[in-house]
Amino acid sequence: MKSISQYREAFQEYLDYKIEVKEPENLYNPMRYILGLGGKRLRPVLVLMSAEIFEANYEKALDAALAIEIFHNFSLVHDDIMDDAPLRRGKQTVHERWDINTGILSGDAMLINAYQLFENYDSETFQELAKLFSKTAMQVCEGQQYDIDFESRDDVTIENYLKMIEYKTAVLVGASLQMGAIVANTSAVNKESVYEFGRLLGIAFQLQDDYLDAFGDPETFGKQPGGDIIENKKTFLYLKSLEASGESEARQLEHLYTINPVETAGKIDAVKSLFRSSGAAALTKLEIEKYTEMAFKVLDEIEISEEKKRPLREFGEMLMNRTV
Amino acid sequence: MKSISQYREAFQEYLDYKIEVKEPENLYNPMRYILGLGGKRLRPVLVLMSAEIFEANYEKALDAALAIEIFHNFSLVHDDIMDDAPLRRGKQTVHERWDINTGILSGDAMLINAYQLFENYDSETFQELAKLFSKTAMQVCEGQQYDIDFESRDDVTIENYLKMIEYKTAVLVGASLQMGAIVANTSAVNKESVYEFGRLLGIAFQLQDDYLDAFGDPETFGKQPGGDIIENKKTFLYLKSLEASGESEARQLEHLYTINPVETAGKIDAVKSLFRSSGAAALTKLEIEKYTEMAFKVLDEIEISEEKKRPLREFGEMLMNRTV
Repeated sequence: MKSISQYREAFQEYLDYKIEVKEPENLYNPMRYILGLGGKRLRPVLVLMSAEIFEANYEKALDAALAIEIFHNFSLVHDDIMDDAPLRRGKQTVHERWDINTGILSGDAMLINAYQLFENYDSETFQELAKLFSKTAMQVCEGQQYDIDFESRDDVTIENYLKMIEYKTAVLVGASLQMGAIVANTSAVNKESVYEFGRLLGIAFQLQDDYLDAFGDPETFGKQPGGDIIENKKTFLYLKSLEASGESEARQLEHLYTINPVETAGKIDAVKSLFRSSGAAALTKLEIEKYTEMAFKVLDEIEISEEKKRPLREFGEMLMNRTV
Repeated sequence: MKSISQYREAFQEYLDYKIEVKEPENLYNPMRYILGLGGKRLRPVLVLMSAEIFEANYEKALDAALAIEIFHNFSLVHDDIMDDAPLRRGKQTVHERWDINTGILSGDAMLINAYQLFENYDSETFQELAKLFSKTAMQVCEGQQYDIDFESRDDVTIENYLKMIEYKTAVLVGASLQMGAIVANTSAVNKESVYEFGRLLGIAFQLQDDYLDAFGDPETFGKQPGGDIIENKKTFLYLKSLEASGESEARQLEHLYTINPVETAGKIDAVKSLFRSSGAAALTKLEIEKYTEMAFKVLDEIEISEEKKRPLREFGEMLMNRTV
């Protein structure tokens, strides 16, 4: 089997080859632009890796991998409009560089194009891939809707929040791995298990993202630290903190989440201090470990050789140890 | 076979039964809302009709018909955002009633949902339907992009324009008919012919829409007459008029398409008068007849009984004689 960076290279080469200049340019150039901004290509790498783990040549999975990456980028284009985000990967977002209408329409075309990439598979594989894709894409939309709804709700539970990140982020990780398994035509049990591994790892990853947003090393995390706090985002850390705090600290935290000071450093420090004193910081780390361990347990039980499991374990470890 | 209104009723009943209240409400309610605004349901009726023409029970085609109607409504939701349209079928558009973000996201969910409706078909039918659907949906996006691009271009040819309306409108009519044929599992030749009939009829229909926008009876046409002229829309009438006019009339028409007077009646009359004097009005009627006749010629040559052809011919005649 190849290394993660080798899969990434093979995928990148395929992407460059498949995404051509086409008419009308205003529809297809934004697609080339956003796909050209790079990114870690985690999801397509998982598709390729999973195909080889279950004894298929990774090349057979390139179209499915590209479908997943195009879908992911479609969701970035539309989400960036909804979030009014000016930058993506340090470059202008599509709706900033062109306009909102271009972002909407080229996003739509990307979603359709993702489905078209399954067309070269035989009809049974096609149906299985497209069904999984539709189910997952719908959950991603639902997750995005919950995320939007939660902004204006003050009764969001930890359970609600976990479902939101599962839908918005984790199911696509699971689906990426299951697509490789479908292309490789492995057993139904294997397809389910590898999905579950990805889903659990995806939840752990997103919780860790929340944690690092407050407590990560700005040098290595890559985003502006405290961003979620500035935006009053009701993350796991926040919800857990409310749950674990005494009455007075909870009110204090809620108050901090109603203000939007120009100078953000004081607010960030105060909130982080409450995240720590309530025990929520430590509890979040425990939750991350819980989901990571559940993921690895599922992986242990998949009936493939230890050698085949190693890349997935390494991938999981790389993902979870990135910058803590 | 049933009458058009009977197919419409059967379809409406199925739509009401399938489109349920679901969580998250802000994602699914806009979908129920736009689908509940009514409309003539022309496309799904064509799917059902075509299935029966090729010897299948129309009930087998209900899911494909619903997919087409949901896709059509998805495109209305996103187009209305792009056109900044406040009203659709006399009611608030989705982005007016909710907001732009809701329009984008619930539209995305509708597009995905359309694909899901093919899942109950066997895998070969599924693949054939989904492929046709993707190809068509992509063309609809391309047509919409051309339409947007043409607004700021002054070198649009009649050929460009015909391709735009073919993609934006006509291919979906062809695809509706072909979906019925796919569900009925008829011959490849029949599938192609019925598509071609729909495509040609769709072009005729759209050209007639352009014509009626200028010359239709306001009592029966349903839209505000002269809307295209007010918006300086480069329709077939306009392009043909430029082509058929002498230098001086052409400059006059071009000038009229640069002004946006508050009182529109004078501009509308002047433009219509140029459409007539240039011969473009008559030439457009000829073009409509040409496409309609080509459509009926294709229909004549389909190898099914005269009795089976009658509903399609009646449908075409109903469509083309609506209000001229």
